[in-house]
Amino acid sequence: MKSDLDYLMKEKNLDAIMIFGDGRNNPAMVYLTGGGHFSSALCLKMVDKPAILIHEPMEREEAARTGLRTINLGEYPINNYLSKAHGNDPRQASAYRLVDIMNDVGFSGGSIAIYGLVDISVYVPLIKNLEALLPGLSLQTLQQFDVLSNAMITKDDDEIARVRNMGRITTEVVAQVQDFLCARKVRDRVLYLDDENPLCVGHIKNRINLWLAERGAENPHGTIFSLGRDAGIPHNSGQDEDVIMTGIPIVFDIFPCEAGGGYHYDFTRTWSLGYATDEVLQLYEDVYQAYTSSVREIKVGQPFSAYQELVCDLFNTAGHPTVRENPATEVGYVHTLGHGLGLRIHEKPFSRASLPEPNALLPGMVFTVEPGLYYPEKGMGVRIEDTFYMAKDGVLKVLAEFPHDLVVPMKG
Amino acid sequence: MKSDLDYLMKEKNLDAIMIFGDGRNNPAMVYLTGGGHFSSALCLKMVDKPAILIHEPMEREEAARTGLRTINLGEYPINNYLSKAHGNDPRQASAYRLVDIMNDVGFSGGSIAIYGLVDISVYVPLIKNLEALLPGLSLQTLQQFDVLSNAMITKDDDEIARVRNMGRITTEVVAQVQDFLCARKVRDRVLYLDDENPLCVGHIKNRINLWLAERGAENPHGTIFSLGRDAGIPHNSGQDEDVIMTGIPIVFDIFPCEAGGGYHYDFTRTWSLGYATDEVLQLYEDVYQAYTSSVREIKVGQPFSAYQELVCDLFNTAGHPTVRENPATEVGYVHTLGHGLGLRIHEKPFSRASLPEPNALLPGMVFTVEPGLYYPEKGMGVRIEDTFYMAKDGVLKVLAEFPHDLVVPMKG
Repeated sequence: MKSDLDYLMKEKNLDAIMIFGDGRNNPAMVYLTGGGHFSSALCLKMVDKPAILIHEPMEREEAARTGLRTINLGEYPINNYLSKAHGNDPRQASAYRLVDIMNDVGFSGGSIAIYGLVDISVYVPLIKNLEALLPGLSLQTLQQFDVLSNAMITKDDDEIARVRNMGRITTEVVAQVQDFLCARKVRDRVLYLDDENPLCVGHIKNRINLWLAERGAENPHGTIFSLGRDAGIPHNSGQDEDVIMTGIPIVFDIFPCEAGGGYHYDFTRTWSLGYATDEVLQLYEDVYQAYTSSVREIKVGQPFSAYQELVCDLFNTAGHPTVRENPATEVGYVHTLGHGLGLRIHEKPFSRASLPEPNALLPGMVFTVEPGLYYPEKGMGVRIEDTFYMAKDGVLKVLAEFPHDLVVPMKG
Repeated sequence: MKSDLDYLMKEKNLDAIMIFGDGRNNPAMVYLTGGGHFSSALCLKMVDKPAILIHEPMEREEAARTGLRTINLGEYPINNYLSKAHGNDPRQASAYRLVDIMNDVGFSGGSIAIYGLVDISVYVPLIKNLEALLPGLSLQTLQQFDVLSNAMITKDDDEIARVRNMGRITTEVVAQVQDFLCARKVRDRVLYLDDENPLCVGHIKNRINLWLAERGAENPHGTIFSLGRDAGIPHNSGQDEDVIMTGIPIVFDIFPCEAGGGYHYDFTRTWSLGYATDEVLQLYEDVYQAYTSSVREIKVGQPFSAYQELVCDLFNTAGHPTVRENPATEVGYVHTLGHGLGLRIHEKPFSRASLPEPNALLPGMVFTVEPGLYYPEKGMGVRIEDTFYMAKDGVLKVLAEFPHDLVVPMKG
């Protein structure tokens, strides 16, 4: 967790971390600053020292609100550096300016890891210029120096509380969607929005965004609400104009976050409205068994990938192909069991077996368990997903309860 | 505009453009692909050839929906490349894989400009590895090779229509906010949400997100709704717990976009509810005069920076300091007159004088005009902003009409 950061930096002989970009929707920046309404900023964290936030002049009070020590770029006017830069190149000028600032804060060189969700057409040249100007500097871009991901991999109590709160919001909205669907009138298996218009996926997705906004949450990555054949391809998100009908599987995967790009939740149910066909019911049973077996078997200290193996075993036994024997399969079990989440929707730990690092499940980790089976040409797919927390006592706990049922009875 | 792209690439001897990252909230990717629910993709556009979208296996149908030629990364399993990479480094493996794909599409080397809003901790090493593996390759990161920004600087009819539609949505929501404010009960200058609770900035901001979501728009950068002293610092966004009162200036700056990170609108009004003090009224008059003079004087073919000069002249005459004589001033006119906008909230043209390139205003350009005056220690600031379009006939046209009045009468 965040309190491990200095230790992790020293372990890798890192002298500093630099995070570039916006104070919103920029996980590394939000992690070290708490986030805020500032843009084009730089957070510089030297080992064993508190982070410093370097910001644009007009954003001085938003920057100050983070509680960090701040440096106003207005005190280093870019015009003073443009003349030094080749052809007035603004990216080289920014690098010259940054070197001055680093000197002023007492950083004379060393090993720095860089982060930030930014436009690479601007920041790759800035970083290359910085390397050229500071021969004593070594910018660490190898994955082994990614100490921030290794800090983020476990969460402190405040972070757990925030993910749990997003879980509450997410399941409230899911319940609202279910109630809305159940109450529709049905004619010839088609659900109706009103007396005249069939209910479409777009109507549902708009309401999801609305109901999330009402609770102060955001949905930057969209929602998967995919029907039949689309449900059979995990990342098909469902087309707005698709008409919702009874008796076909709907994969509903929702992964919103706190406003401004804060902590996420990740949740999937597969529903069949009114009734389910035998084929879909069987597929659901196989997935539900994999889900409950994983949740029952997961033990603190064991590698996450062990449960990917377990689920592949179970699915093979039930006659389904998996990515284990054919990584390119497009039917059966076509993905991995889960992933960590926090400020990023996908982060460590991952359940892939072919990782360069061990992936043991440790107290403080927040991760999904989400087995699924997919047969697009049969018009079906099923996935069940909840977000879990490995508690300090080593017990696995779901962060928001919600029924797993496939069949959703219609009341309309 | 987009149809200029091959011409602009040839002018700079660019053989290709590469855009990395997500299909949402990633302006360069949305520009060339139209956007969509795909992530970690690569759009490769070779000169005089249509763009190709290289995507993850699970996102094959979302990628296909763009209408571009697609290449499925599943046909290039990463495990085949991990063994070639030093220490199984996944970023080096990705670079090896990319070299194979580029060979297969017939790209044997040359000059490539790179783009994408991505995590630099992952993409800087990928790009460095790519440069090391392809000695015939030259990745262009100098600003002069930024042909995409030069294509984006003018908009085609479809893009204008989309910005205008966002202008309609934005002004509808602004009108809704105004109606909501006007209808509040007032006691001792404080507006009330209901019989007991004062109305706070957070109540307004939540409603703005809700009312935007109802219209299918998103608000990824947040809203500025800042009161009194906060109004005096341009990027102070206003604190949720601040209580809204009559007779103080409110800077309301709203800049939403189409869902998924599409085209933006940018709009500011300064309101004083019920009445305005003489001091704020005078400040408003000075800003309104600068606004109307700019809009009246702006001529096609003239540099945008000429009108920054004009506004500095006007403000100096009225006794206000400006950034022209003191770039670090925190009172008076502390920013520039405007900026282009489109898929990015800030893009070319810019009105700064110290730019390496000319910044003439040309037909097809969409940009803001937003003079402002700021006196934080006097508890006031005023900004007026509209988004304009330079029509084919060289006439400047506002993209959404809305009254500019400072004083908003209370009806409650």
